[in-house]
Amino acid sequence: MREVAVLGVGQTKFGELWDRSFREIGIEAGLQALVDAKLSSADLGALYLGNMASGSLIDQEHIAPLILDYAGLVGRHLPAFRVEGGGASGALALHQGYLAVASGLYDYVVVGGAEKLTDVPDSAASAIASSAADHEWEVVFGATLPALWALIARRHMHRFGTTREELASVPVHDHAMAAKNPNAHYRNKLTLEQVLGAGPVAEPLGVLDCAPFSDGAAAVVLGPLEIARKHTEIPIRIAASQVASDTMALQHRKEFTTLASTEVAARRAFTQARRAPADVRVAEIHDAYSISALVALEDLGFVDKGRAGPEFASGKFGRGGPLTINPSGGLKAQGRPFGAVGVAQVVEIVRQLRGEAKDRQVADATLGLTHDVGGTGATSVVHLLERAS
Amino acid sequence: MREVAVLGVGQTKFGELWDRSFREIGIEAGLQALVDAKLSSADLGALYLGNMASGSLIDQEHIAPLILDYAGLVGRHLPAFRVEGGGASGALALHQGYLAVASGLYDYVVVGGAEKLTDVPDSAASAIASSAADHEWEVVFGATLPALWALIARRHMHRFGTTREELASVPVHDHAMAAKNPNAHYRNKLTLEQVLGAGPVAEPLGVLDCAPFSDGAAAVVLGPLEIARKHTEIPIRIAASQVASDTMALQHRKEFTTLASTEVAARRAFTQARRAPADVRVAEIHDAYSISALVALEDLGFVDKGRAGPEFASGKFGRGGPLTINPSGGLKAQGRPFGAVGVAQVVEIVRQLRGEAKDRQVADATLGLTHDVGGTGATSVVHLLERAS
Repeated sequence: MREVAVLGVGQTKFGELWDRSFREIGIEAGLQALVDAKLSSADLGALYLGNMASGSLIDQEHIAPLILDYAGLVGRHLPAFRVEGGGASGALALHQGYLAVASGLYDYVVVGGAEKLTDVPDSAASAIASSAADHEWEVVFGATLPALWALIARRHMHRFGTTREELASVPVHDHAMAAKNPNAHYRNKLTLEQVLGAGPVAEPLGVLDCAPFSDGAAAVVLGPLEIARKHTEIPIRIAASQVASDTMALQHRKEFTTLASTEVAARRAFTQARRAPADVRVAEIHDAYSISALVALEDLGFVDKGRAGPEFASGKFGRGGPLTINPSGGLKAQGRPFGAVGVAQVVEIVRQLRGEAKDRQVADATLGLTHDVGGTGATSVVHLLERAS
Repeated sequence: MREVAVLGVGQTKFGELWDRSFREIGIEAGLQALVDAKLSSADLGALYLGNMASGSLIDQEHIAPLILDYAGLVGRHLPAFRVEGGGASGALALHQGYLAVASGLYDYVVVGGAEKLTDVPDSAASAIASSAADHEWEVVFGATLPALWALIARRHMHRFGTTREELASVPVHDHAMAAKNPNAHYRNKLTLEQVLGAGPVAEPLGVLDCAPFSDGAAAVVLGPLEIARKHTEIPIRIAASQVASDTMALQHRKEFTTLASTEVAARRAFTQARRAPADVRVAEIHDAYSISALVALEDLGFVDKGRAGPEFASGKFGRGGPLTINPSGGLKAQGRPFGAVGVAQVVEIVRQLRGEAKDRQVADATLGLTHDVGGTGATSVVHLLERAS
């Protein structure tokens, strides 16, 4: 298999984009990425689109050829695929696109992620979010996705002494980061007091511990590393692309302060790239709920098990430290359009590695990581990206 | 890229399986295929699952790890992917699984397709079927999937003189075939008079011109051809796997008595396999509506453009002729569980090529073709399968 590089990136603003349709945002991100990659559509081989729930959200399945069509790219009858895996849909689509180029099947592919979540009532969006959990063993008994993550939080607090304040430090961090991100859903700063004082969703998680429902789309163009310099001055090599699964229902796991899928995907990714967690300078990790980020830091190998609370709250993962977490603002503040998230994480890391992240730039960003999760971790996806030397 | 073989197949009965859940049928088909391939789950590399609309149908997205989990295969945290493209979802999943093995990424993968369509009211299933058409340019104006195919039928009749009776010969053929298929949704024979006398759905298509909504699942195990004989006496080589797209809306095509996506996918497939339509002995083609089968015969190159009506009605595609169409009974009579269809087509062809199709056996079945369509042809997928020599 050959080496694969990211040649171009594109992303819409995330937020309540009520004046724009699903297809409009999908096309905007994709065309941005094609232009960024200086790629003629005549060279394109296929489209992979991550999306979680367009059927329920916009009454439209079969969306991959739809985006190709309305982007004006239908003439060559390219293959187009939608890939779904809950909130990890975008990262799974990226994995498929990576494989397509690595195998030599296509030279250039576009990988997109898009979701239009705010055109339905919040109650509907909540039910759809929970459809990434186990319907028959969890949701029919009244569990929701935040309630399940709240169980993980309670257990983490009980077992490791993680505090409510440590949890609350995650959204404070994310909003501080997003303040510098023009694409972010929320750019307001938050204080610890605001997070702690917000109404409960599923205790210990309050409304400000939960990422919002957002509209948004992101896209990348992938191609063979060996010819990447024709398209970009700074090719970003995909050093690893790994997917792992786990039980759907939390109750069927031996332990749920660890997401085994994340642990396994991370181990496979570091092995594939022959790198270690300590080599990573910048990471976009799954923080749909405050606890998600703490568990992820442990499972990805960035901190010892049980230590994420105090270490995160110490501020060491801000800009300027050895590892900057979620410079985009993460799902919590950049926003959470389910299927777009995994691709947007890669867009941010590519911009960081290229040195194009402006106010958000992380110094010495050479190796970056993205981490995307579906549901409560039945799917995890880890990508490692680095500046090609 | 290395050669890929089908090593095992499995399929549930298709029909109204009201006593069985989505996950139960998915697991049944997958485990059958694993047993048929004499494959230990320890050798499995990944799962690819075709499904169109589980979110709308059973309130459950994120179904690929779910099936892995409840099949007892979660321990190794395998990658699991759902692939969606309307009614072509199963065939698209197969294409991804094929690529994964061909590239050398995994040695063995399971490709499944599953849909549970009869646990919702028919009106809901109809709306979901139409979500494979273009919501903004077709469905909001009142078009349904059968109505769009009826437009294709009218145009085909106008342009080529295709008759109502020729259309009706499709379901008569399909039901005669399905009478010998124990997995078929409908095993009753139909007469031309019954089809012509059935109530209208979207004229000229009557209710017996339209494939039913079915529950069902199918699965195949894929592996490298070079080691296939460890698993099966008669390895079936995937000689071609090709996907093509087209506009979502009919009105945006220059001509709609041809599905350009099918023409292109077929051309690519015959090129990949270095074979011609005349080499094919048995084919499972898309016949969601009577007209679909006639258009497919033309676009796949089996008959000249415009000639499918009289040629099909002549009976030449029955068992015993040079090319047997839809020995399973097709979508019309074996059934139409959207995401399962493309995989079930391959299951039938594999059984035919192995000589294991019992009462349905087609003599001298050496090269087989499957043809799956999403919506009105925004996606078409063509596979060619042959007995490995």
